[in-house]
Amino acid sequence: MGGLTETVGAIRAPATAPAAETRELQDRLTKPRGALGVLEDVSAQLAGLAGRCPPPVPDRPAVAVFAADHGVHARGVAGWPQEVTAQMVANVCSGGAVVNAFAAQIGADVSVTDLGVVERLPRLPNLTPRRVRPGTGDITAGPAMSQEEARQALEVGIERARDLVAGGSRLLVTGDMGIANTTASAALVAVFTGHGAGEVTGRGAGVDDATYGRKIRVVRQALDLHRTDPADPLGVLAAVGGLEHAALAGLVLGGAALRVPVVLDGVTAGAAALVAAAFAPHSLAACVAGHRSAEPGHEVALHVLGLRPLADLQLRLGEGTGALLAVPVLQSAVRTLHEVRTFDSAGVTDKDPRG
Amino acid sequence: MGGLTETVGAIRAPATAPAAETRELQDRLTKPRGALGVLEDVSAQLAGLAGRCPPPVPDRPAVAVFAADHGVHARGVAGWPQEVTAQMVANVCSGGAVVNAFAAQIGADVSVTDLGVVERLPRLPNLTPRRVRPGTGDITAGPAMSQEEARQALEVGIERARDLVAGGSRLLVTGDMGIANTTASAALVAVFTGHGAGEVTGRGAGVDDATYGRKIRVVRQALDLHRTDPADPLGVLAAVGGLEHAALAGLVLGGAALRVPVVLDGVTAGAAALVAAAFAPHSLAACVAGHRSAEPGHEVALHVLGLRPLADLQLRLGEGTGALLAVPVLQSAVRTLHEVRTFDSAGVTDKDPRG
Repeated sequence: MGGLTETVGAIRAPATAPAAETRELQDRLTKPRGALGVLEDVSAQLAGLAGRCPPPVPDRPAVAVFAADHGVHARGVAGWPQEVTAQMVANVCSGGAVVNAFAAQIGADVSVTDLGVVERLPRLPNLTPRRVRPGTGDITAGPAMSQEEARQALEVGIERARDLVAGGSRLLVTGDMGIANTTASAALVAVFTGHGAGEVTGRGAGVDDATYGRKIRVVRQALDLHRTDPADPLGVLAAVGGLEHAALAGLVLGGAALRVPVVLDGVTAGAAALVAAAFAPHSLAACVAGHRSAEPGHEVALHVLGLRPLADLQLRLGEGTGALLAVPVLQSAVRTLHEVRTFDSAGVTDKDPRG
Repeated sequence: MGGLTETVGAIRAPATAPAAETRELQDRLTKPRGALGVLEDVSAQLAGLAGRCPPPVPDRPAVAVFAADHGVHARGVAGWPQEVTAQMVANVCSGGAVVNAFAAQIGADVSVTDLGVVERLPRLPNLTPRRVRPGTGDITAGPAMSQEEARQALEVGIERARDLVAGGSRLLVTGDMGIANTTASAALVAVFTGHGAGEVTGRGAGVDDATYGRKIRVVRQALDLHRTDPADPLGVLAAVGGLEHAALAGLVLGGAALRVPVVLDGVTAGAAALVAAAFAPHSLAACVAGHRSAEPGHEVALHVLGLRPLADLQLRLGEGTGALLAVPVLQSAVRTLHEVRTFDSAGVTDKDPRG
């Protein structure tokens, strides 16, 4: 694994037998059948991904934050100045952001990869410099980037997946930082789901009504300008995407190829998962939706992806924060398969004993 | 604190200034205002409870599982034989149940208190024997217990809160184990909310249609038999409650008096919180709804209590499992207040700078 083509080629369908075996094991554990609800589904999914029952506990979670800027920021779609991307990267790298607090709570690592922050970043702890270009181009005036740049950014994501797993992580968590990136997210979601700009564009980190109206028009303009084909994900990324969306899609593909689950954060990760699924539909077997964000495009993306979010707490922050809240849920679901006794072994009377 | 009257008398209204100060602090942290959604609400609540901003991180979570049997089991309302209560207590005490796996994932302690399991329990690790009576009476034929027994069970819960907090816990988590206890929960929810048996009775740990119909009729019969007054919570508990419901209400009152938050599990805890609120409305300031269970009575209870659950994953297990999933969310919310930098201190440009 390394290049995009090789990685996509390495992604296999989830194994059905271990998933079925997990369902059967769940039914023998000392609890009413089905009583763990969504956690039973997700643990069976992870067994299918891992190809064994029980699947390994997804420990040593690692948040990969991908940072980049967006040319479309110049169109006045964001409530924050562009320099905030670089400032927040420095904040995350030094441990001062919300993603750091959430990660510390559950023992997750946080690292940042610079894909293309406009401002030159100094050397910072936990920062991997992988600058493809200084921000994307304005998607209402031309392509965000070249297809070669999109591929480069994708392969940075694949590289991060490989390095984090090589470092011992068994659970990848998506993170993102890029002022104006919900505009590119909305455009990507629109292309891959067929929904209109008005349905998938949200207020991001919080914009006023005037900015929100402009943002919808900008997304519509970008969609009108580019002849995008959802069957050509590299072309779509290059046209209306972001460098961090490309890297996030790469992280998903890399995780899927390595059979390591990837917890998705909000709308930016949802848009990237749509890209990954367009490259390799089976990459979805590695995806767990961490939460449902307040962005309407996220809801649309989750629906089309068929993913059920584990948390739903009206977060709209990004960085990986929503995904981190879901990590202990996922770990608990798998841990149950390893540690909980069966009716037989615990000497508990089964309601529906098996013949 | 010790007796019921003294404990209820010690419960104060939450402090408004620290809660407001927390809102103001949230707005200065390096994130968009309001971007942490429900987590901002809950951290302000905990500041009000603690009387300071930021409130202490609710660490060393401790699950108090209260176990007891129910005379109404004889009416065929449960899908499991009564002996399963004792068997599951032994399973929890030796670490083999789902609550143990979930607790281990987040470093929570688990202990069980026997309030009245019919079968005599041997000495078990992590078991506190506080047997009030060998199960309740059949609530369709007479009272569940005497008012004196209800008070005793309440005071066991108060004692557990005091002991766990004295042992260092800063977050109490409710747990319960008692075959047929969702029947008593439904009756309690009906009394305190004014809803009918059909609206608050669910399938508990899973019963077939015939049993479910019978269960609704049994709840209705119990409600018809007893002249309950929601303003007399001790009387209601004695008439249609359970020993574990009484102890759980005591845990809530004890936590509230000590200003330590209590994460509520499912419908049994919801019913107990209604009891606690009837004794001391301000005890709700200590309550955090861990999750929304699949039981209809839980939804009704949460609505009347005005609590918004942190998790919603279709669990219907009890034991404290749903509440445990919410613990890292709560801890992350408070940790954010302690660890995340402000715009000023991080050198991040604020969108809406002050003054």
